[in-house]
Amino acid sequence: MNAAIIGASGYTGLELIKILINHPKFNISYIANSTGNINVQELHPSLKGLLDMPVEVANPKEVGKVADIAFLALPHKTSMSFAKELLKEGVKVVDLSADYRLELETYEKHYCEHEDKQNINDAVYGLPEYYKEKLKEAILVANPGCYPTASLLALLPFIDYIDENSPIFIDAKSGVTGAGKKLNEITQFGHINENTHAYNPFKHRHMPEIQEKIKLLKQKEFSVNFVPHLIPVTRGMLVSVYATLKNEVDVNDILAQTYKNSEFVRVRDNAVDIKSTAGTNFCDIFVARNGKALFINSSIDNLLRGASSQAVVNANIMCGFEEGEGIPKIAYAP
Amino acid sequence: MNAAIIGASGYTGLELIKILINHPKFNISYIANSTGNINVQELHPSLKGLLDMPVEVANPKEVGKVADIAFLALPHKTSMSFAKELLKEGVKVVDLSADYRLELETYEKHYCEHEDKQNINDAVYGLPEYYKEKLKEAILVANPGCYPTASLLALLPFIDYIDENSPIFIDAKSGVTGAGKKLNEITQFGHINENTHAYNPFKHRHMPEIQEKIKLLKQKEFSVNFVPHLIPVTRGMLVSVYATLKNEVDVNDILAQTYKNSEFVRVRDNAVDIKSTAGTNFCDIFVARNGKALFINSSIDNLLRGASSQAVVNANIMCGFEEGEGIPKIAYAP
Amino acid sequence: MNAAIIGASGYTGLELIKILINHPKFNISYIANSTGNINVQELHPSLKGLLDMPVEVANPKEVGKVADIAFLALPHKTSMSFAKELLKEGVKVVDLSADYRLELETYEKHYCEHEDKQNINDAVYGLPEYYKEKLKEAILVANPGCYPTASLLALLPFIDYIDENSPIFIDAKSGVTGAGKKLNEITQFGHINENTHAYNPFKHRHMPEIQEKIKLLKQKEFSVNFVPHLIPVTRGMLVSVYATLKNEVDVNDILAQTYKNSEFVRVRDNAVDIKSTAGTNFCDIFVARNGKALFINSSIDNLLRGASSQAVVNANIMCGFEEGEGIPKIAYAP
Amino acid sequence: MNAAIIGASGYTGLELIKILINHPKFNISYIANSTGNINVQELHPSLKGLLDMPVEVANPKEVGKVADIAFLALPHKTSMSFAKELLKEGVKVVDLSADYRLELETYEKHYCEHEDKQNINDAVYGLPEYYKEKLKEAILVANPGCYPTASLLALLPFIDYIDENSPIFIDAKSGVTGAGKKLNEITQFGHINENTHAYNPFKHRHMPEIQEKIKLLKQKEFSVNFVPHLIPVTRGMLVSVYATLKNEVDVNDILAQTYKNSEFVRVRDNAVDIKSTAGTNFCDIFVARNGKALFINSSIDNLLRGASSQAVVNANIMCGFEEGEGIPKIAYAP
Repeated sequence: MNAAIIGASGYTGLELIKILINHPKFNISYIANSTGNINVQELHPSLKGLLDMPVEVANPKEVGKVADIAFLALPHKTSMSFAKELLKEGVKVVDLSADYRLELETYEKHYCEHEDKQNINDAVYGLPEYYKEKLKEAILVANPGCYPTASLLALLPFIDYIDENSPIFIDAKSGVTGAGKKLNEITQFGHINENTHAYNPFKHRHMPEIQEKIKLLKQKEFSVNFVPHLIPVTRGMLVSVYATLKNEVDVNDILAQTYKNSEFVRVRDNAVDIKSTAGTNFCDIFVARNGKALFINSSIDNLLRGASSQAVVNANIMCGFEEGEGIPKIAYAP
Repeated sequence: MNAAIIGASGYTGLELIKILINHPKFNISYIANSTGNINVQELHPSLKGLLDMPVEVANPKEVGKVADIAFLALPHKTSMSFAKELLKEGVKVVDLSADYRLELETYEKHYCEHEDKQNINDAVYGLPEYYKEKLKEAILVANPGCYPTASLLALLPFIDYIDENSPIFIDAKSGVTGAGKKLNEITQFGHINENTHAYNPFKHRHMPEIQEKIKLLKQKEFSVNFVPHLIPVTRGMLVSVYATLKNEVDVNDILAQTYKNSEFVRVRDNAVDIKSTAGTNFCDIFVARNGKALFINSSIDNLLRGASSQAVVNANIMCGFEEGEGIPKIAYAP
Repeated sequence: MNAAIIGASGYTGLELIKILINHPKFNISYIANSTGNINVQELHPSLKGLLDMPVEVANPKEVGKVADIAFLALPHKTSMSFAKELLKEGVKVVDLSADYRLELETYEKHYCEHEDKQNINDAVYGLPEYYKEKLKEAILVANPGCYPTASLLALLPFIDYIDENSPIFIDAKSGVTGAGKKLNEITQFGHINENTHAYNPFKHRHMPEIQEKIKLLKQKEFSVNFVPHLIPVTRGMLVSVYATLKNEVDVNDILAQTYKNSEFVRVRDNAVDIKSTAGTNFCDIFVARNGKALFINSSIDNLLRGASSQAVVNANIMCGFEEGEGIPKIAYAP
Repeated sequence: MNAAIIGASGYTGLELIKILINHPKFNISYIANSTGNINVQELHPSLKGLLDMPVEVANPKEVGKVADIAFLALPHKTSMSFAKELLKEGVKVVDLSADYRLELETYEKHYCEHEDKQNINDAVYGLPEYYKEKLKEAILVANPGCYPTASLLALLPFIDYIDENSPIFIDAKSGVTGAGKKLNEITQFGHINENTHAYNPFKHRHMPEIQEKIKLLKQKEFSVNFVPHLIPVTRGMLVSVYATLKNEVDVNDILAQTYKNSEFVRVRDNAVDIKSTAGTNFCDIFVARNGKALFINSSIDNLLRGASSQAVVNANIMCGFEEGEGIPKIAYAP
């Protein structure tokens, strides 16, 4: 099956290329970025000896001729204009931006006016553990944000047991690649090395995404209070969820039961670390309780499970392949 | 005034030496570690050109002859046996271990049997912002743990406004030197570089220290739930406190009022980072509110404000000097 | 083909496991370390969901029953005693230690008395680009050291053009995993983070290894002066070779010609970096000239091309498989 | 004595401010950057509680009214236009840019046309160990580049003993702040963390600076071949010089004799590390020999000895103060 990657210059674009080079079912037939006119090896020197093809300026009609599915690794707003055209050409779309993640009203409140009101309602939220059946039929998938992925996989098993009158707090720590490749003061080595800090506390746009998905999946409204931090690692994400239980339930059992059949969620006996999931699509989760105080702790690779490998899992499901086909499970990071 | 440093090999011992070398009122008259028989420059090569004196095996009687005050940078349990003897010799003591930080019962529950039951009740807890008057009269000061220092400075201004029926969560991130200099698997570069994880969630011994001090200072009992994390930086500590307010009060004003006269607490308008306090005795604090959800965010240098420079501030107060005399405020870390 | 991994606890042992889990021709039939009595998932938690088998205490007779080939990731001296026994059992051996890398006399001068004088002469040095034909027939392969791998791949193309009367200088920088997993002061985060330094300048045991291989392959003796440095990265190795040319030859052409058919050496147009080879078996090389002053610059992953993946390449060749079968070429490190 | 700092936004500007805040003889009377209109605490939040003054747009006439000496932390070319005007106003100048470091012809070959041909010949090169007498009389000092500082302090003691017909190689490793604060792809955390690479090998503009100073001080011409590397640390610089001796001389004695009276050069018995000099004005040097092969190894803080603290040492000497007055010797980095 032929796949196009639109937005090849950034971190997630490169990860998509690397996953698809070795994928047994998908073949990279088209690569684009905003400038084109360069070989993919010049754009990403680490690909020398692995892939040799031109990078185009994206053209939806061209994509329609050469690809069955397209991965959009584009900024929000840019993404929806491409998605709309690609769907017209009969190309399935996995969109890694925020453009189809939220309900229309929520989106327009937190981002901008939406330009593809027709498709936003039909987009499926690509969190495979919770939307697998819908993904099988989807032609447009909204790939979740990295923070919502790790937060929802941690929180959802416990939602029925958490006191609705108490705030939920999510303290999340992300590797620096989570902030993207664009030049930026806070991603300069001189700023963030030997440093760490929160940013946009209680104001990050992944907060309504988490809140809305809980509401849609569990019909419950919570005060979700989200504080992301940047930590001086290249990749990896650690989420610590703090909440108040209604009763002193067996949290270990709840977690184990929820994910007993999940290929990519690993329940852990100890606090999770980011190194064990870095370079893979795994989400590791640990839970602890102190009376009614609850601590749920999850770890993912922000660029893989938080973006590119989850996108390919979604594509696998959309195309009728095995969920884990061609998905990285082993990383060469000791 | 002559000062002894007992326990010169570890990280906090070295920091004590560096502060006291340039201190205008204290003179280093005695340095000891467990082996002795070495020049301080061989023990710490960075001291070449700065200090040239022998390191002794600690002997309380000798200390009594040459020093007016002693800093103990020793493991808990070892520390109390020295402190007891030094007090007999008329030497004032600032103890950086846990041995005199807690009430007897709390100590014995979380550590071991106490060997100096006579002095533990008279020890003053060395958090200068809250115990200044008592410190002026003290002959034995228990220097607070690094986590309690950053947590209490953040929490105490808000204790009267926090709902006593909701758990308080403290998510703390410490640089690797916080785990000490002893060889250890989790402090190996191969383990903690490009990594982060919680340790002892809800079970760390600084949790009862925080809880007890709130109770003693504010006569209130809270469910304090403490989760420390290790992050891949050499020094620095970031504390994120999450709690539920009783009412939607003006948290910025409360914070500003509390510390308006504090030399070493800086109230910040944005989320704090660890680089701004690293290498200094400052504690930076920021606060935010979302309805009744409260986020208090503090940053200290774990080895200075969390140990050695706070110890010298305490010594300054005990000896009648200015609080800030000889205390580092500027670090050469951009 | 069944493969045993002896020495599974260290960094290179784990890398061997990860490569062989997905290898299309080798099947892991036996894993051992010095203690046994543990599942491989407990030993290496990142293997959860990937491999589930017991770790044994190594027994050569048992290995002989279940494996056709064994990888020894053991300390030198321990390694030769196992290798000797395994060869008796008819098991092919790839030894990752130093025990069979040198000629007997050189070995005994720099290490210790050799306990397997019978086999040391027949061992083949496992640098595939230069020993491929011999490797096809080998039953015992000495896997090169990480520094010699990167240094020889850089130097050998130019040996005929370098002035024999001028010293060759090799300034090498290694990630911290190169020093092994054993607890060690210089591999503590508090020591090596935000730091770098040379160690054993002109005295490291990889210096005679480089010198001897040049002599054996090129019949020339050079003054090779080797200075290794530790840099604060987990994995990766950068080698900068400085030498004096006899004449102002076309160094780019020499390099390109030498490796034009090499699957795992990539000639680069710019100074190489370690990120482009980290997580793979590639060796990237760049060369520059200033008059007769020569700079050759190579990069490898110290644990893969410098140890475990090169070992599997050697095993592939020994067993008649394709050189690149199952060998990592893509890393999820942006 | 009143001092102005022109160029306060960058790394070296901030370091100058921090040194001068506590300097017993200099008083900061004027701070400028290219935009002005901001308080110095907003520009550098770590200065809160330490310094409270406006940042101006630099105006030489204004500087002339309020300052006796000015430190220029400006890009080359911009710097010389200010220096020229400041000298007219009777202000002494320490220029941290490259504009006055070289002889006119060398400068114009490697940089651009010079706009202050009058003063370039009178500028004194601010390497205190070698130009102290001239510095006492200087009104314009060219502060050396960071690489030349560490390279010349290492090389100069041995120049008389090195074979003039063999190339000298300098392999230098710099912390990332050496590349400045301007947004830049190679200083992004995602690029340089867990990475290292050479840049401009044999082509860096500090190469002619080193070569010219050797020639001026020692009347000898050498082939100096310079290869700088970026390493993933915030600050610090390690230089490894490789050269061929004429004879097998006692290199330890030569080094010790050269610097026996130097306050800021420390001769070391082991390979130097960058942590021991980070945060200070020290240059640590170690030397080793293998036959005629010579290895000289020096370490400095690239922002202090390589820029700002050396600038203040030069100012101290120009103004008749003690060389070490107010100069950092202790860093709070364990």
